[in-house]
This record gives sequence, structure tokens and C-alpha cells, in this order.
Amino acid sequence: MFKVPDHQVAGHMAGAGALGPLVDDSGHFYKPLQSDERGTNEVAFYTSFSTDTRVPDQIRKFFPVFHGTRDLEASDGSGMHPHLVLEDIISSRINPSILDIKIGSSTWYPEASEAYIIKCLKKDRETCSLTLGFRISGLQFYGSKETGFWKPDRKSVNSFTHDDVRSALRKFVSSNSPTNSDIEPDCSYASTIYGGPDGILAQLLELKLWFEDQTIFHFYSCSVMMVYDKESILKGENPNPQIKLVDFAHVMEGKGVIDHNFLGGLCSLIKFISDVVTDPNK
Amino acid sequence: MFKVPDHQVAGHMAGAGALGPLVDDSGHFYKPLQSDERGTNEVAFYTSFSTDTRVPDQIRKFFPVFHGTRDLEASDGSGMHPHLVLEDIISSRINPSILDIKIGSSTWYPEASEAYIIKCLKKDRETCSLTLGFRISGLQFYGSKETGFWKPDRKSVNSFTHDDVRSALRKFVSSNSPTNSDIEPDCSYASTIYGGPDGILAQLLELKLWFEDQTIFHFYSCSVMMVYDKESILKGENPNPQIKLVDFAHVMEGKGVIDHNFLGGLCSLIKFISDVVTDPNK
Repeated sequence: MFKVPDHQVAGHMAGAGALGPLVDDSGHFYKPLQSDERGTNEVAFYTSFSTDTRVPDQIRKFFPVFHGTRDLEASDGSGMHPHLVLEDIISSRINPSILDIKIGSSTWYPEASEAYIIKCLKKDRETCSLTLGFRISGLQFYGSKETGFWKPDRKSVNSFTHDDVRSALRKFVSSNSPTNSDIEPDCSYASTIYGGPDGILAQLLELKLWFEDQTIFHFYSCSVMMVYDKESILKGENPNPQIKLVDFAHVMEGKGVIDHNFLGGLCSLIKFISDVVTDPNK
Repeated sequence: MFKVPDHQVAGHMAGAGALGPLVDDSGHFYKPLQSDERGTNEVAFYTSFSTDTRVPDQIRKFFPVFHGTRDLEASDGSGMHPHLVLEDIISSRINPSILDIKIGSSTWYPEASEAYIIKCLKKDRETCSLTLGFRISGLQFYGSKETGFWKPDRKSVNSFTHDDVRSALRKFVSSNSPTNSDIEPDCSYASTIYGGPDGILAQLLELKLWFEDQTIFHFYSCSVMMVYDKESILKGENPNPQIKLVDFAHVMEGKGVIDHNFLGGLCSLIKFISDVVTDPNK
């Protein structure tokens, strides 16, 4: 009944002796609770968010639906372990292309310990977070039956430069092979996937409007996942581009202040994506 | 011909043995160049900005007009010293109320030295910068002929809490005494100074639109100065509310990325000010 998800691009992955998420056939995604305060924090966030009447309905669609927690046999065979039960955003899709983007120039929060700040700041400086206001933390792009998926390993993704990020955001919406670095991405799906009234850009702009006003939550080290069905677009069907926020182990109370760290990074990502839509030929 | 300006709320001030800015009667403000790379940087910024055709005309009004540099007898009596010659924004005003707000949760830039980062980060954490995305770095509020100006010293301003900042942004547009902390600010000028088509909020929103798009400059440790004629408003005349960006010793090249640090802080300030306009009675 439970299985390891086919398409996971970031976070802990289930495997031999490794604790990771599971999915079932009914559209649920089971994320093992981290055993320290990160697990507690994430449950607390989902519980509070799912019942908070201040969150507008049109914003809820950007978050996975929360179905509580459940004890399951862990994927690493270590026995029963508590899991978050969430909406499975990915498994129903055929050959999805996925981008996981961690938002914010700072992944640490002001009240964090000195040691935690130093650790995060080092990584924010080594990756693109500090300069771009976001970093790509995982991706898989479907090419074709022949080439399959382009899914660089975590270390490669972490070492992406500014140019690599710009290129990845172009490859995500291109018809030509993502694996061949000699080919210039054609961005032929830019207007379909990023643009248009239901495209990713419109969704990001709706999210931005909320972040300009909401002072309830501050989302540190949280990702925007962008996904669409590459298979559908190849067949001329609706590729259903979607964004979802994921990873809430470091959400803090907003205390009446907007989340300027997340908002700044989100605006930077929006500018990168607008540039692709406005000028797909660079 | 040159004199020490009457109304200066932040930065180095001229005085006995101290090098500070001077003004003249023809509307010029002379800012002594800092002798290290900060002086060079600020001249380079003004020179490049004033000739950069990518900067829209409606944005230029938010920057002091630059009239080159000039060697002047320094205010500290140490002999000739190079000065930036700038538009004097303040001296023509009668009893102005002034707020100097340093924008950005981070006052240091990614390429800075380790020592500089640690120094700035410490101050950003001690002040409101990190939590609010901006901090008040100086202010003077005119009350009345009887009470004169409220101008807390630098140390008091630096130790402003979140609540102090919120209160200062309300006092700035209130008719009752800014010096008496027992009186609740009435915000009776909120709609005139912050609101309306020519108000401070409208100006900040216009600036925000530019920052969502411009990738030319990154403004670290730069301030938005907000000013209006308190005297005029008391007489029922146009108080001429205005914002200006000042202090460009730490402007960096944008390298094709928006200034998400400045933009995030600006959005946070806009939210604080919107709250005062929307609900002046708290």
C-alpha cells in the first residue's frame, strides 16, 4: 500500500536504511516527522495554518492539504514512526518536470542560536541564496522517452551559479534536451507554463500580494515547488502548471511584521521568470 | 556663505573639531567625502546614476540632484576638503519634521569582508533592521512653538524597539506633543502626509515598482528620508511631504538581480505606514 514516491527532488529520501517520505494510491504523501523540534514545528505550523481563518481561500491552494499525523512503518525499517499526512502533489502526474526553490536570502531566523546562524549563513553564502534571494534546492526535468529525466545530484545543484540558475529556469520550459549543455534552451513553453492567466507567474504574483500584507507567519528555509506535466504538453494537453509551498520546519510567528526575507526573495524569483517570459530568446 | 545645516538627524555632524556637512543660501548641501573607499564609492554612484539613461525620470525625483564635487574649507577647520555638492532638501523648509530610515534587514553586502559582515550583523541584530527589515536612524519631529522639536539622541534611536518604531511612525503624523510619551499620538495628519495621491505612501509605492524591476544598483545601508513642513500644516498650507534616498557609500552593482534586500525592507516599511493610514486609531 505504501511506496517510495517516484519523483522527489529535495529533502531526505527513503532508501536502504534511510527515513524518507512515502505515498499511497489515494493521493496522500506521508512525510516522516523529524525527531527534533523541526518535526514539532512543522506539525504546529500545519495545524495552526489549516484552521487559521485569516488565511484567504485563494492562498490555501498554494499549500498542501493537511490530513493530520499518522504512525506508519518507517521507510528505513526501523519500526513505527509518526508521519505528516499531506496532499500528494506529484504522484498523479506523468513525467512531471519539477523545480524546488528555497526562498529567502537568509535561511536562518533572527532568534536562532549563534551556531545555527553561522552554519546557515555559510551555506547561504556558498549557494546563490545571499546574492539571488533564493536558491534551487532540487530539480528534475523530463526531456523525452529517449533522454528521460535530467536530475543533477544535490552537490551539483548546491554549486549552481547565478548563470546556472538562469539557465535552469529556461530549461524548465524548453522543448529541447535538458541534459545536453551544448544546446541553447528554446523556452518554447515559456508562455504556456510561466505565462498566461493560470501560469506560474500569475500564481507567484498572487502569492506575492499576500506576502505584502500578511504578518502571521515568517517562512524561513521554505521552498516554492513548481511543477507541470511534461507528458501532457508533448501531447498538446493541459500541462497544469502549479506552485506549492513546502517545508515548514522553520516557520516562525510574524508578530505583526511582514516576511520581508521571503518577500524579497520571491520578488527576485518573479523578476527572473518575467525575464524568461518577456524575452524567451534572451 | 557656508553654514552648518539647522536640521540634520543622522550621519556625521559638523561641530567643534568635527567634519560634517555644510549648506549655502543657494540651495546646495555640501557633504564632505569620507576619506576611505566610502567617499570614492559615493562619488562614483552619484556620477554613474546621474548619467544613467536607464533610470526613469519619475524615479530621479527620489534622489538628491548631484552638482559634482568641490573643495571647501572643512567644517572642522582642518583646511580644504573635497565635498559632494548636492541639492539641499531640507533648509528651505520651516520647522520640518524629518525621519531617516535605513532600509534593508542586512546593511552588509555579500562580497564584504568577514570582519565587516560580523560588525554590521551585530548592529543589525541589536537594532530593528533584522526583524523589521529597516531601522530608524534619526528623527526630529516639530511639535509647536512651546515644545519645539523632539530629537532623541542617536543612542536612544538605535535602541528603538518594534513598538517604538510603530509609535514614531504615528507621532510623525500627529498633532499632539511628540515629546510627551503619556499622550497617545492622534495621527490626525496621517491622511494628508502619508495618504493621498502626493503623499508619502504613494511615493514609496512608486519607488517600490522601480525596485521590483531595476537590477542596476544594490543599495546597502542607504536611507529613505521622509520630510514635511510641520509649520505649513499648522497654518493650513501645503506641507509638501517628500521622500528622498540618501547615503550611497555602499551601493553595489546589481549584476542583473533585483535588490531584494532593499525591496523587502521597503515593503515592510510600506506595510507599517499603510497600517497607520488604514487605521489611524490603531
